[in-house]
Amino acid sequence: MANRPKLTDAGRPATFEVEAFNELGEMVPTAIAGEHPLTLYLDKRELVTLMTLGQAPEALAIGYLRNQRLVGSIDDIVEVQVDWDTDSVAIVTRHGVANLAERMEKRTVTTGCGQGTVFGGLMDEIDSIRLRDDVTLEDFQLFALVEQVRKYETIYKQAGAVHGCALAKSTPEGAEILMFVEDVGRHNAVDAIAGQMWLGEIDGSDKIFYTTGRLTSEMVIKCAQMGIPFLVSRSGLTKMGHDIAKKIGITMLGRASGRHYLLFTGTPRILRTVAQPTAHV
Amino acid sequence: MANRPKLTDAGRPATFEVEAFNELGEMVPTAIAGEHPLTLYLDKRELVTLMTLGQAPEALAIGYLRNQRLVGSIDDIVEVQVDWDTDSVAIVTRHGVANLAERMEKRTVTTGCGQGTVFGGLMDEIDSIRLRDDVTLEDFQLFALVEQVRKYETIYKQAGAVHGCALAKSTPEGAEILMFVEDVGRHNAVDAIAGQMWLGEIDGSDKIFYTTGRLTSEMVIKCAQMGIPFLVSRSGLTKMGHDIAKKIGITMLGRASGRHYLLFTGTPRILRTVAQPTAHV
Repeated sequence: MANRPKLTDAGRPATFEVEAFNELGEMVPTAIAGEHPLTLYLDKRELVTLMTLGQAPEALAIGYLRNQRLVGSIDDIVEVQVDWDTDSVAIVTRHGVANLAERMEKRTVTTGCGQGTVFGGLMDEIDSIRLRDDVTLEDFQLFALVEQVRKYETIYKQAGAVHGCALAKSTPEGAEILMFVEDVGRHNAVDAIAGQMWLGEIDGSDKIFYTTGRLTSEMVIKCAQMGIPFLVSRSGLTKMGHDIAKKIGITMLGRASGRHYLLFTGTPRILRTVAQPTAHV
Repeated sequence: MANRPKLTDAGRPATFEVEAFNELGEMVPTAIAGEHPLTLYLDKRELVTLMTLGQAPEALAIGYLRNQRLVGSIDDIVEVQVDWDTDSVAIVTRHGVANLAERMEKRTVTTGCGQGTVFGGLMDEIDSIRLRDDVTLEDFQLFALVEQVRKYETIYKQAGAVHGCALAKSTPEGAEILMFVEDVGRHNAVDAIAGQMWLGEIDGSDKIFYTTGRLTSEMVIKCAQMGIPFLVSRSGLTKMGHDIAKKIGITMLGRASGRHYLLFTGTPRILRTVAQPTAHV
């Protein structure tokens, strides 16, 4: 990784304790999730202010640029400097970003997310995405993943009010979580993972993306852009999320909890071996 | 209401049925929530694209302009025309919006919402907000509200993947829900209520705002901007939501479910009469 950008390492405390009174009038010390503004400056130009838990601000900034397709490769990023005194992150690119002003003009506020701004015609690029068809996931591996996620949700368990995302891979024994990020905005969590994948040079083409949040259009698009063929959520989905998943051919599972799930699209990649000896379709 | 704007009435179907396969390989017809892009044109200028369930698009457009403080009064809005053939809504104002280009430049992507873009320095205006101190809510009225919300969440019960918001008032018998909106983005639901309040000339100063979603900074700010002194959620909160609530003096309750709640800020407005004869503080 010769071109790994120069990074700060500036996470923020994840939870804070405040006083609350319950229905009996008793004071109950209560942990709440942090929420900090973080303004992104791209080559000294103010781009956007994200509201974030602040656990992985450098990866968030990099992943944001990646998922908004403002930067095409981690090699284009020279430096990422987070400064919580000014709630800002300064990103320096190698060659600048072409047509930045023009690309910032068109914005779409997306669904149910902590980060809705999408620059440019994201939907136009969907047609070019090809996900691998030669990868499968067995149901026992899925169940192992769902079980493991529960151990990682530390901030959610303490304070609620956050969404979690995981990048995982299947193993002969089950599944292994490679990274797990929680944030007050679920798209921040996705973007932080996208940033970490670039930093770690991790290929998504055989991986599983898990989210505690809903499967909306932008969640499906971001997952597909990272080349990840499996998208799993314990929540539900929206019609546009479903439409896009079907079009891209991503394997999308909702309501995954315990040993239950609903498989919506991309069914051939899922092999059912535990409950019944026959596979889907 | 001499100046009520001319409106279309163009709601979209809320749910759609798709095929899904459960863990036994059985096909399960499953209802999913609609999600539609809706591009706002303000005086023929493209402003933003919201992703919405589409139940109350006219009120959403009006409430969006209200909560972004782009329009100061319902009287300034002449016409709101939704056209789902082009996924757009055209809003015509009486006198135009001053400095629109400048105000659109600064954007903050807020937390955990389906509509994050905020134009201009929203935080600067918080200091000027004064909420009424001469209104109270008794716990039995709160419990009545929480109970009633359950009857309104029709889309959530069918399809999940939506957030609900209610505007309610306390009554001698308990509470009455005046309006209830569900949307794939919870800030859309808030904004649709803000729009309906303007259309119905409803004063917020003695009302209760209920949300199924988290109490983040923007949720608190929007509630305060509508002058509503009571903010209730069944979910948790973030630190910035807490900080702002404390500063504004709004009465904020989280984890409200059944006969339980946590009272975080603005405690004097809550009277505890059911569980114990003494009040808080």
